[in-house]
Amino acid sequence: MADRLTIALDAMGGDAAPEMVVLGADLARERFPNVDFLLFGDEAKLTPLLDKCGELRAVSTVRHTSEFVSNEEKPSHALRAGKGSSMRLAIEAVRDHEAEGVVSAGNTGALMAMAKVVLRTLPGIDRPAMVSYFPSIRSETVMLDLGANIECNSTNLVQFAIMGEVFARTVIGLEKPSVGLLNVGEEELKGNDAVKAAHAILRQARLPIRFHGFIEGDDIARGTVDVVVTDGFTGNIALKSIEGTVKLFSQFLSEAFKSSWAANIGYLLARRALNKLRMRVDPRRYNGAVFVGLNGIAVKSHGGTDALGFATAIGVAVDMAANGFLDKIKAEMESLDAARLEHPKAAVS
Amino acid sequence: MADRLTIALDAMGGDAAPEMVVLGADLARERFPNVDFLLFGDEAKLTPLLDKCGELRAVSTVRHTSEFVSNEEKPSHALRAGKGSSMRLAIEAVRDHEAEGVVSAGNTGALMAMAKVVLRTLPGIDRPAMVSYFPSIRSETVMLDLGANIECNSTNLVQFAIMGEVFARTVIGLEKPSVGLLNVGEEELKGNDAVKAAHAILRQARLPIRFHGFIEGDDIARGTVDVVVTDGFTGNIALKSIEGTVKLFSQFLSEAFKSSWAANIGYLLARRALNKLRMRVDPRRYNGAVFVGLNGIAVKSHGGTDALGFATAIGVAVDMAANGFLDKIKAEMESLDAARLEHPKAAVS
Repeated sequence: MADRLTIALDAMGGDAAPEMVVLGADLARERFPNVDFLLFGDEAKLTPLLDKCGELRAVSTVRHTSEFVSNEEKPSHALRAGKGSSMRLAIEAVRDHEAEGVVSAGNTGALMAMAKVVLRTLPGIDRPAMVSYFPSIRSETVMLDLGANIECNSTNLVQFAIMGEVFARTVIGLEKPSVGLLNVGEEELKGNDAVKAAHAILRQARLPIRFHGFIEGDDIARGTVDVVVTDGFTGNIALKSIEGTVKLFSQFLSEAFKSSWAANIGYLLARRALNKLRMRVDPRRYNGAVFVGLNGIAVKSHGGTDALGFATAIGVAVDMAANGFLDKIKAEMESLDAARLEHPKAAVS
Repeated sequence: MADRLTIALDAMGGDAAPEMVVLGADLARERFPNVDFLLFGDEAKLTPLLDKCGELRAVSTVRHTSEFVSNEEKPSHALRAGKGSSMRLAIEAVRDHEAEGVVSAGNTGALMAMAKVVLRTLPGIDRPAMVSYFPSIRSETVMLDLGANIECNSTNLVQFAIMGEVFARTVIGLEKPSVGLLNVGEEELKGNDAVKAAHAILRQARLPIRFHGFIEGDDIARGTVDVVVTDGFTGNIALKSIEGTVKLFSQFLSEAFKSSWAANIGYLLARRALNKLRMRVDPRRYNGAVFVGLNGIAVKSHGGTDALGFATAIGVAVDMAANGFLDKIKAEMESLDAARLEHPKAAVS
């Protein structure tokens, strides 16, 4: 990773932008000294912020725009009216090869819509998906689609499997990640038509993928596989169900420690270990949902994140760019085509 | 609740049957002194077990059969070959008005298939659903369908809403439970066609239901609504994702307490409070998934449960029978028909 990379930032996206974006970039700069930043946003606000971060300023360029996409804006409106927005211009920097990737903590729907229109999908990919990763008992679990596609057919699911596997290799650094299809049972007869057909294709085709087969909801946190493949409706609901349960458990735990003086002293003694646990599930360490399947790297940071979380999202974009994410997906898609030629019966339905 | 009730038990279903079933019935007898039990299973095994529980024996009748449905058996095979099985005979006791409800910890698919064939669906209900409840931050959340129907249309979802609402009133004892439709966003434009159409019907129809609108995955644990309505594919995956996350968090917590001597002593001091937390999320307190929409009460206990969990499942059946669950659903279905007459445009699509 000797070459320099450029990451485009939507400096006006996110609840705490632009301060959070500049501070996040400054944190990322420490971790990735070979990265230059291209910041899109209000120069009058960005310049004084950058002046406080001298080392960041040295590797940053500001492109002024006073327009930005609000959180309440509908994606269709943002597409039409947001052509001069910081979000749109940052994405266009990737299309125009001025940057290797774009990071935004702004409006998710608008970012998805703009990224699709501006970057377009990779050859062989029908629909982009949203992917992220979070802690499991074993290590870390990659999951997609997290909400970009409400209804998916078997072709979409097979393509998600390929993209998720490449993501696990590129971003998590796994050598030979295993892939599972989310279903309501492990038997081959269970599930809807799309998952059954996708299962048959992934089983038969000579893909360079370690396909585990069907998994169930409790396998996500258990870490039974490295990559969980599902449609965007189920994936979004599963992810948010997990997030809600973590909050429930944290609240029950906090109430338990407050319930008696002994529990309270117990908490004080265990605090250091419990803080480590908190760090282990800290959402800021897992910030950054990626739109995969596009002809460019686009990372969505959580809108409510702080500088640390935004730096994590930048890190995801840097890892993807530095490790050749797009080229790897293209190579896998070619091997899928080759596998289909060898197995004409395994044609994607 | 002065009248006596009879509950039919599949005494041979479950990993630890028949001991667990008899001990569970004995625990339930203490809580419900007005219940008689009709046990179906191997008399040679059941009689010595009942002899140890004198008070239970006094309110129990054994119907001998040496046949039972195994956990590995396919539902279709159990339907054909299991006509003399303890599971089938216990369900038939409900059909024949010998018992007000049946409880089994046996093969889920077989129980569902047999219950559908033997009990049939209630008038106006197209498909039965599987419902259960579990703890939320606010109180308790009822959710359905948990896996009986992989694909659902808007009619199914509306019927699930009605049945879930009656379940929350009858079993949890809520006066006016709120109902939410699980979706990937709260806006009316989001989601698949089935949830959008169901949303429109529930909003328009003059149902005696407190309909909240769409909810997201994290609302399940948050307790935003009392009843969560979804299709069986999503519901099964959401439920198991939640169960898996509780296990993940428990394991992380246990590792944290073992990670240092201070944390260890902290655990000992907080143990009593942590045990209360454990009880609060104890799955045995939430045992019993119910097949609703059938012309009879059928409760599925977890196969791996112990006597305490089985007693909980019996309690669910008793609550449903004693509080007139079936009659309440019939009344709601009639009011739905009346509402449709008033609002011809809100016809179920």
